[in-house]
Amino acid sequence: MSPARERRATLDTLPTPALLVDLDRLEANLRRMQERCDRLGVALRPHVKTHKCVEIARRQRELGACGITVSTLAEARAFADGGFHDLTWAFPAIPSRLPEAVELARRVTLRLTVDTPEGVAAVEEAARAAGLRLHVLLEVDCGDHRSGVDPGSQRAVELARALASSPHLAFDGLLTHSGHAYRARSRAEAAAVAEEERSVMAELAGRLRSEGLAVTTVSVGSTPAMAAAEDLAGVTEARPGNYAYFDATQVAIGSCTVADCALSVLATVVSGQPAAGRAVVDAGALALSKDPGPEGTEPRSMGRIYRDPAAGLLEPELRLSSLSQEHGELSATRPVGERLRILPNHSCLAAACFDRVHAIRGDEVVDAWKIWRGR
Amino acid sequence: MSPARERRATLDTLPTPALLVDLDRLEANLRRMQERCDRLGVALRPHVKTHKCVEIARRQRELGACGITVSTLAEARAFADGGFHDLTWAFPAIPSRLPEAVELARRVTLRLTVDTPEGVAAVEEAARAAGLRLHVLLEVDCGDHRSGVDPGSQRAVELARALASSPHLAFDGLLTHSGHAYRARSRAEAAAVAEEERSVMAELAGRLRSEGLAVTTVSVGSTPAMAAAEDLAGVTEARPGNYAYFDATQVAIGSCTVADCALSVLATVVSGQPAAGRAVVDAGALALSKDPGPEGTEPRSMGRIYRDPAAGLLEPELRLSSLSQEHGELSATRPVGERLRILPNHSCLAAACFDRVHAIRGDEVVDAWKIWRGR
Repeated sequence: MSPARERRATLDTLPTPALLVDLDRLEANLRRMQERCDRLGVALRPHVKTHKCVEIARRQRELGACGITVSTLAEARAFADGGFHDLTWAFPAIPSRLPEAVELARRVTLRLTVDTPEGVAAVEEAARAAGLRLHVLLEVDCGDHRSGVDPGSQRAVELARALASSPHLAFDGLLTHSGHAYRARSRAEAAAVAEEERSVMAELAGRLRSEGLAVTTVSVGSTPAMAAAEDLAGVTEARPGNYAYFDATQVAIGSCTVADCALSVLATVVSGQPAAGRAVVDAGALALSKDPGPEGTEPRSMGRIYRDPAAGLLEPELRLSSLSQEHGELSATRPVGERLRILPNHSCLAAACFDRVHAIRGDEVVDAWKIWRGR
Repeated sequence: MSPARERRATLDTLPTPALLVDLDRLEANLRRMQERCDRLGVALRPHVKTHKCVEIARRQRELGACGITVSTLAEARAFADGGFHDLTWAFPAIPSRLPEAVELARRVTLRLTVDTPEGVAAVEEAARAAGLRLHVLLEVDCGDHRSGVDPGSQRAVELARALASSPHLAFDGLLTHSGHAYRARSRAEAAAVAEEERSVMAELAGRLRSEGLAVTTVSVGSTPAMAAAEDLAGVTEARPGNYAYFDATQVAIGSCTVADCALSVLATVVSGQPAAGRAVVDAGALALSKDPGPEGTEPRSMGRIYRDPAAGLLEPELRLSSLSQEHGELSATRPVGERLRILPNHSCLAAACFDRVHAIRGDEVVDAWKIWRGR
């Protein structure tokens, strides 16, 4: 073994708490989703908000991703600097951030999203003032009832027409997010949401085309829906993000098994009073987030403890009963000094707690990648 | 008005989402807690995990703080670099982080915390190997039942004796955290927790002294307990942190009023479908954390919307019904483009979502301070 190799950190020596991504699983997850999209006949534009890692997005692109989706302009800047030139900011355009968006749009294709007359006006004015043409998608509510226009409304047609008729904008089409697939508790329920999403979007796209508007992009996506979708006729691209890592919530929905989950938090038992039957790990709310996990699972656990990460097995009884800022409270005693791996309830939020993620193969730490958090 | 002054950002122009600290309130909060500690006859060692800002800790020191408390070694390093030389790491010493702690202990006083035989052994071995004497406190469970030794146990005495008798360690005394004061729902309940904390600690300190051990430090603290404590006889120092900012949880406990709360998130309404009676702001789980706020308040709101921040008035009905990564869902419609100020449920976790906090006086942004997150 070479000296360089000897110095390499292992899971027994890495300082904790630490964020780990299992490369074999990550690569299998990326490949599987790309194959699904290929089979369903849609382009894959992965949402990088899950990992915020340029190194992972590069793997997604090598496998066939057509571009990326971002949730913040900090991500957009970091990935533009990292060589990504086709980005969709899947968040309703924030007026006070449009100067930054315009700066980015001068060097890459940055597609903005709007769903209100005020949003259309703000984006149009920013493009006019900057003297460039901004690419815009109209966000549609396919049933999640968070953001997006009502697809059956006259407003949807009016906004599309306003975007398409502006000399300062390039109307690229429609975008939606089936966030309600997260309320599914089986693959069949998620498949029903995916079909609702597909049909709503295909129908609205058809209606707009029949009114003479060009709709090139019909973009859908959420990991639960994309893991279950059986047909995407009328859709052109999908934007799942979580599938790169998966997490305890996706297991509960049925999008994956525990053995597919690629992200974990390595923690150490730092305190324990055997007589009291409790213990504390060094992974709290700033390592796992306070995401309570899938609804309907009682008692709640703020993350799941692995019994055997390699086999994808969890401890059936041991829970993280409570998280404070840096403390995680275990529901039973464990030896002080023991290292545990924790499956987050929500991998996107857990990853955003860290500045970097350690890539592992087996028990060996082979790389560390920057996480581009911030705004 | 000078050109420099004209260029200064205001709350109408600052890009959102943004973290704001109201300087008048911050300064009043810092002064009030220092005065309380002076009156109660204890030193104040504020926990900087709440703000992670060197500029705020400097104000705390100017007012009389004896040193600071940190939750991570990243904070310890940043504050040591910022001129703070008396630090307590109020977290059970993490074995894999002891090399970093030793490096810090070579240039500042860094007090470590242990509460198990394994912790004592690890800290002693690190000190021995490094050839320096590490300062250590014994953590005591005063009723919160998270970490800390049982104060009535023989183990408490044995661990104190092991620390005091080690040639590699300096045993500085006892530390506890009255986290159970967060379960109080009135000032009277919090005062009862504070008195429990005081009496447990004073009693154990007396017991150890009667066995011939020197106990110089008896350190207590949590913001709810310190806001309510009436007597701290036998205690030498207090470590509250949240009092600098306060938040919706502290209001529910009775530690403060809304008009005392210094931290808010400035957000913009970015989406809204009037017919559906809903709206979305650009402050989600990565701006507010998913802290659900005080138990027993239904319906839950993931943060409270100000009606009039200057007057300390909240919207009585409007709620943040749900947070996803970057979206915050309002329970009613609001004009798209409107800027809202949001009182976090938990200011420590909200502050840790941001890289910097903007200091405001009235509506003017007068400064921006780095938040030293990370580990």
